[in-house]
Amino acid sequence: MDRFDVTILGCGSATPTLRHHPAAQAINYRDRVMLVDCGEGTQLQMRRYSIPFSRITDIFISHLHGDHCLGLPGLLSTLSLQDHPGPVTVHMPAQGIDIFSRMIEFFSPGVARNVELKAIPDGIKVIAETKGLEVVAFPLYHRMPCHGFIFREKKRQRTLLGDKADMLGIPHSLRPAIKGGADWWRPSDGRIFTNAELTTDPPAPMSYAYCSDTLADERVAKAIAGVDVVYHEATYLDDMANQAKERGHSTAAQAARIAARAGAGSLVIGHYSKRYHQPDALAAEAAKIFPGPVIAADEGMVIEIFNARRARAQELPTP
Amino acid sequence: MDRFDVTILGCGSATPTLRHHPAAQAINYRDRVMLVDCGEGTQLQMRRYSIPFSRITDIFISHLHGDHCLGLPGLLSTLSLQDHPGPVTVHMPAQGIDIFSRMIEFFSPGVARNVELKAIPDGIKVIAETKGLEVVAFPLYHRMPCHGFIFREKKRQRTLLGDKADMLGIPHSLRPAIKGGADWWRPSDGRIFTNAELTTDPPAPMSYAYCSDTLADERVAKAIAGVDVVYHEATYLDDMANQAKERGHSTAAQAARIAARAGAGSLVIGHYSKRYHQPDALAAEAAKIFPGPVIAADEGMVIEIFNARRARAQELPTP
Repeated sequence: MDRFDVTILGCGSATPTLRHHPAAQAINYRDRVMLVDCGEGTQLQMRRYSIPFSRITDIFISHLHGDHCLGLPGLLSTLSLQDHPGPVTVHMPAQGIDIFSRMIEFFSPGVARNVELKAIPDGIKVIAETKGLEVVAFPLYHRMPCHGFIFREKKRQRTLLGDKADMLGIPHSLRPAIKGGADWWRPSDGRIFTNAELTTDPPAPMSYAYCSDTLADERVAKAIAGVDVVYHEATYLDDMANQAKERGHSTAAQAARIAARAGAGSLVIGHYSKRYHQPDALAAEAAKIFPGPVIAADEGMVIEIFNARRARAQELPTP
Repeated sequence: MDRFDVTILGCGSATPTLRHHPAAQAINYRDRVMLVDCGEGTQLQMRRYSIPFSRITDIFISHLHGDHCLGLPGLLSTLSLQDHPGPVTVHMPAQGIDIFSRMIEFFSPGVARNVELKAIPDGIKVIAETKGLEVVAFPLYHRMPCHGFIFREKKRQRTLLGDKADMLGIPHSLRPAIKGGADWWRPSDGRIFTNAELTTDPPAPMSYAYCSDTLADERVAKAIAGVDVVYHEATYLDDMANQAKERGHSTAAQAARIAARAGAGSLVIGHYSKRYHQPDALAAEAAKIFPGPVIAADEGMVIEIFNARRARAQELPTP
């Protein structure tokens, strides 16, 4: 099973507290690290939880409130002090490109040539892609332009029955084609082994959606339909629904409703208002509504997508 | 005794570690707070050590390397979320005014009208002043324009002998003049009480100098001559003197020599390279040269200037 997990680096909201750091998560997929949001102090949190700086390939910034992006100049500045700062693509709302270009040029000119700033397009679009994973941006509904992200594994190749292939003497050069779905013709007797005889179905692709700073909105449920694990902000308890609406945020109950409508496997909540010293009440409120497991994010928590998905035992309501 | 102390918020160098935060100190003088440098995460360190945000009047940025100023946008952004963001003056090298104006306007427009950015002039100049304290900027010698700061109490008024004044029946309205040096004429018999009979010498004014990121330079010793307490960077041990010179930094031995030449009462060292896990060796190296107490800065340490000065018992070498 390929590595696919999420480390919570910060799950607080705008006003920093000693309990929670501002927003940041590190997605580990195979041997690469992708950051989602980058609040002040993210680089320190990365050190604390041993996320290797050199493996960062992409940074996705949901929106341009300071608690989601002000760790970027410092992180890039530190990268510029390293011997081999790799190319990093920073995806952010178009409105931030100018100011961040200037900041990077000013504070870390040494890294500027290795950093590409890319505007996130409107609508639902694939904005980054690796061999095994694609990243989809979709609209969120906050007080300024804001995007969510889905990290979705591509369809995997079929799983070759290795022992059988060895026994039959299938050359290694032909195996990739078989994993891709081909049958095999045995030269010695002309017998054809069908692909179904040689392979099994691959594990279903895994997916993770990040919904930070948004009103609870049906369009979000639709955009993330069927994801295995969804992180959805839950800034307030439902008794503060008016405040949530006014400030472009969600309550825990609302987050649970969106996740349920999306048919998600597990729900992770975060972006807690500083008024809540413990997330227990928020998690309990969500758990009353969401049928799957509800995980209250905390700094340092590592969520393995495969394990979080396994909790998805019973049939979930279809969106 | 008026409050005059320094809280170390960060005493690490450019690459952040889990041991030390980037540069920042809070000067508490009477009921105001002045920050010196503001590395990433300063606002969190202020919370950790209970420095009240609402009392900040001035922020002094020594130079524009990220580890000395990238906490500024986040701190000002948080101030803008408070109900009554007070006026704050940020003093920084002229080269930073443009980029920081843009950053503040972008990330915390609500606070922009309460923040004034002021360029630090060249040379040795008083750049800020309150009733009891003046702040002097002076040149440091780093890889870019860099300034040190002296926080110096003004000459205090004489101390009125309160019991004697009461006994003689000196009206309260006349006492400020006597504290200022006046004699008193007793109306009942025309007798003159000289100021020397009515007052004692005030405590000597206290002073603190901050020398961050600089080559060891005689001109610095001259600029800070006679201060009670000096913070001087000591990035390396003396066996790295070449590296120090090349990067515009000082060794612990060099810092001690400058402090001794300045006739300072106590020496605080900091800005440790990440190669040193403990500052013990750095402090020991400085103590071999500096005749007064050597204090190895650490996050959360509070240095009371009066107490640090009292250690100045024996005669120190004159610069």
